[in-house]
Amino acid sequence: MAPKLMKMIRVEAPLLREIMAEFLGTFILVLFGDASVAQSKLSNEANGDFFSINWGWAIGVMMGVLVAGGVSGAHLNPAVTLAMACAGRLAIIKVFFYMLAQYLGAFAAAASVLGVYSDAIQYASNGTLTMNDEANDPGLAGIFATYPAPWLSVAGGLGDQILGTMLLLLCICAITDKKNTQIPSALVPMYVGFTILGIGVCFGANCGYALNPARDLSPRLISLIAGWEQSFSWDNYNWFWVPIVGPHIGAILGVFIYIAFVEAHWPEDGDELVPVGVPRASFNKDRGFAAST
Amino acid sequence: MAPKLMKMIRVEAPLLREIMAEFLGTFILVLFGDASVAQSKLSNEANGDFFSINWGWAIGVMMGVLVAGGVSGAHLNPAVTLAMACAGRLAIIKVFFYMLAQYLGAFAAAASVLGVYSDAIQYASNGTLTMNDEANDPGLAGIFATYPAPWLSVAGGLGDQILGTMLLLLCICAITDKKNTQIPSALVPMYVGFTILGIGVCFGANCGYALNPARDLSPRLISLIAGWEQSFSWDNYNWFWVPIVGPHIGAILGVFIYIAFVEAHWPEDGDELVPVGVPRASFNKDRGFAAST
Amino acid sequence: MAPKLMKMIRVEAPLLREIMAEFLGTFILVLFGDASVAQSKLSNEANGDFFSINWGWAIGVMMGVLVAGGVSGAHLNPAVTLAMACAGRLAIIKVFFYMLAQYLGAFAAAASVLGVYSDAIQYASNGTLTMNDEANDPGLAGIFATYPAPWLSVAGGLGDQILGTMLLLLCICAITDKKNTQIPSALVPMYVGFTILGIGVCFGANCGYALNPARDLSPRLISLIAGWEQSFSWDNYNWFWVPIVGPHIGAILGVFIYIAFVEAHWPEDGDELVPVGVPRASFNKDRGFAAST
Amino acid sequence: MAPKLMKMIRVEAPLLREIMAEFLGTFILVLFGDASVAQSKLSNEANGDFFSINWGWAIGVMMGVLVAGGVSGAHLNPAVTLAMACAGRLAIIKVFFYMLAQYLGAFAAAASVLGVYSDAIQYASNGTLTMNDEANDPGLAGIFATYPAPWLSVAGGLGDQILGTMLLLLCICAITDKKNTQIPSALVPMYVGFTILGIGVCFGANCGYALNPARDLSPRLISLIAGWEQSFSWDNYNWFWVPIVGPHIGAILGVFIYIAFVEAHWPEDGDELVPVGVPRASFNKDRGFAAST
Repeated sequence: MAPKLMKMIRVEAPLLREIMAEFLGTFILVLFGDASVAQSKLSNEANGDFFSINWGWAIGVMMGVLVAGGVSGAHLNPAVTLAMACAGRLAIIKVFFYMLAQYLGAFAAAASVLGVYSDAIQYASNGTLTMNDEANDPGLAGIFATYPAPWLSVAGGLGDQILGTMLLLLCICAITDKKNTQIPSALVPMYVGFTILGIGVCFGANCGYALNPARDLSPRLISLIAGWEQSFSWDNYNWFWVPIVGPHIGAILGVFIYIAFVEAHWPEDGDELVPVGVPRASFNKDRGFAAST
Repeated sequence: MAPKLMKMIRVEAPLLREIMAEFLGTFILVLFGDASVAQSKLSNEANGDFFSINWGWAIGVMMGVLVAGGVSGAHLNPAVTLAMACAGRLAIIKVFFYMLAQYLGAFAAAASVLGVYSDAIQYASNGTLTMNDEANDPGLAGIFATYPAPWLSVAGGLGDQILGTMLLLLCICAITDKKNTQIPSALVPMYVGFTILGIGVCFGANCGYALNPARDLSPRLISLIAGWEQSFSWDNYNWFWVPIVGPHIGAILGVFIYIAFVEAHWPEDGDELVPVGVPRASFNKDRGFAAST
Repeated sequence: MAPKLMKMIRVEAPLLREIMAEFLGTFILVLFGDASVAQSKLSNEANGDFFSINWGWAIGVMMGVLVAGGVSGAHLNPAVTLAMACAGRLAIIKVFFYMLAQYLGAFAAAASVLGVYSDAIQYASNGTLTMNDEANDPGLAGIFATYPAPWLSVAGGLGDQILGTMLLLLCICAITDKKNTQIPSALVPMYVGFTILGIGVCFGANCGYALNPARDLSPRLISLIAGWEQSFSWDNYNWFWVPIVGPHIGAILGVFIYIAFVEAHWPEDGDELVPVGVPRASFNKDRGFAAST
Repeated sequence: MAPKLMKMIRVEAPLLREIMAEFLGTFILVLFGDASVAQSKLSNEANGDFFSINWGWAIGVMMGVLVAGGVSGAHLNPAVTLAMACAGRLAIIKVFFYMLAQYLGAFAAAASVLGVYSDAIQYASNGTLTMNDEANDPGLAGIFATYPAPWLSVAGGLGDQILGTMLLLLCICAITDKKNTQIPSALVPMYVGFTILGIGVCFGANCGYALNPARDLSPRLISLIAGWEQSFSWDNYNWFWVPIVGPHIGAILGVFIYIAFVEAHWPEDGDELVPVGVPRASFNKDRGFAAST
């Protein structure tokens, strides 16, 4: 049945295929991520805490990359898409379509999380989807979008999002640089997942490490639609634009810092495609883990 | 000694070999999984909590796949078996035998957990294997089968099991799709384990992420036999059929969504078997992590 | 300097090399493991809990396998050594020497843990190394050896050690079976580490998952020497022999169950050494992850 | 844009390239690590605890190795650099430059953590950056540098740093030894990360497992500059030199112990570069996981 079906629905246009992969990958990313927050909040931490949320987002990204990696390269993040385009690694014409797919995928995912946890949200809130200004607590709306900690200034939040996304892109560039530690495609999802886990345990306290405009804006819309009226204005704080603007700046910075410190300087010899398992050093004694003499 | 023994007991019939592997793999899966719940509950969380239970199930699946992967493909789950048959990836005639092996393996595993923790169950319960309706708590019976959270409607539970198993199969399809990120068989157990970990930290709050009829029904029978009389009727809730029906629907959905969004559209060129370590992009600049221009 | 030194101290006798590797590997295993318990107990759980102890033992085994794997195959456990000899995978004559190295390595490691945490032990105990019978708590002696939970009968403890070690060997056999999921040697340490993590979160509540006579007996001797006089007789319980006898039985069971269910039945075709990354299924459509039709 | 830019800024001098990589790698290591401590302390453990800090440092090292591994071998630690030079694996003339890059990278990272968490530090401390002698608690200064536990003597602290760094180098040598379990360069970052995680859950209770003079001294300077006046003299304890001297001794010990027990004794046959996936044992039945007969 499947082979026939596959031929019937087969799409050959590369851009359309990439859009579908970006949609599905971002859907999976946000489905895992938002649900991990929901599980912790709705069970009053009986079934999760901040660390399990860190793992939820990490595995969400890992699985999103597994699903979309071979088709589109698995950006899953408008900030990554723009930075890749700036670095000449994505055709400019594709930027809009990639981003659209990412925003839509995140939207569908947040709606699914709202659906699958709707009984629990009803149970926990008695149907009053409020956000408490005084308690410095966005409440259940925090399942969907990120909100700043009580101490955070707008400048501090912007700095946090820029630094975090810069770090994310630095790591992604190192992981996918064929001339560095030579990660095969099969390990890319795992390393990118660990990157997200690391950023979560290190840069999550200020404002929840969005690092991704699609991951933040689309679920925020869902929470507004669902009835959390302060989603865009909680605590009189005009916050929502920070996790949109910050990541775009940080991602571009990250790519160019990696180029400036590492990527621009690889020797132009012919050993780029050394098979995994044969240490680079056996070709070029000057670099690699085994010898830096 | 072993080589001689091996010749004496050698089975050549493929189906019988696959049945034995499915039995042993599912046995290992449920042995780890149910025991992780037992450890947490019986030690009053001194030796475990929901997060360690998440790891127990993840590693149980990882090890089950390691044991059965090379023989049967390691379904370990009737919902996976049915979905693979629907997609034309398993001969229909094998479905019944795979499922039987899975139910029996889970049964043997739950009996083993009952045995190895019988001293502790006796100590914790004084021999009265009760399930408390009022406290919304199935008590020690929760070691074996899953029960719904107090907020969960039947429709909500069915949706949870469908969505969770759909997500599981989406990820499994991506992990085993030779044309996507090209995971070698040696990494399949690890990625499938991380998938289960992710679903556990994200979709465990509603009803304990069974996602697998064999994992739920067989241990439920053991708990009934052991003396928890309400295993199939706790809290006047006709729950037991939900983790049987939901996963079957979700698994089929997941396989076909992956086909529709990704698998049906791979180009038919000859680069399927690119060795790991050589990025796909060096063969086809249009896709892969390194370049999507 | 190093190359000259290497020539001067070079040992060519295989058995002596294997003994040194088993000693160092077991030293590292127990050094990590016992220290993880020490960290949790001595900081009153401020710097660790049972889950971090699970990780400590898992990474201890992982690193022990990394250090000894290429020399001796990294048994690091008398029960593994005996089971491998029973299965014809280790020359009988080597058994005694491997075990001696393992017991000595564990002894040196426990002594090192006693040394590095001696300030903290002095601080926590005021120099009175007591074990409290009434409180069902072996106290700081639990840093070194395992003790049974209050509910555990001797038969229950023996069953626990047999089942746990059987499960360990089942997984190890699957991980190192070249014809199953084809784990390259580079991933063996990681999978064996995850096996230990899994057993720790699932089978640690009864009596601390020793699974290894060297890991338990040698540190128990150190704790006796250090001054915990009840190390071998705590709570009037003749416990110490259980984590010696149980693992030996379980390990042999595990190896033969794996042989009986999986290993004896591999087809004798010539595709054993399929390179990683090329799915088995492309050689033999009958088995593997991609297709079991 | 990127290709042109790369040509313009291209550096060909190997030493300068290695310095830049060591700087960036150490920057990333300490950026993750110090931030994980900051997240836990500044959120009063709502967003982290000692275990999440263990993961923060582990992933920091993993990502630092990913970034610098292909250029300089990713020492990221003056103690590693000196030990590698002592073992003849790094030209003596490079030692100073590597160390300088490491100290500067750690300095820049600690300054960045101070910046990104400055709102939170201000909020938590009301601007009074004090360290409380009586409470045995260095307070927020512990975000940057390590301080001894109340029980720790100077000798105990020195022993802890020597043992911990010795263990680190033992593991690193095993991971990068091409003749042992044959870890491909792509798995080196992951195994080194797990090594750090293991040391963190096992040897973190005494004095916070610095194991790296750059990781400790540079952030300590930042905390002094920021206003914690007792950074170098807290609790009348002349501590700061211990995490500088101890690691240098331990690292050299670790390298030579690994050489003495394992590396000096590899047979001089020609099978060093066996491809991953083909078990060593198929070349030489005398060693490896599959057979030690």
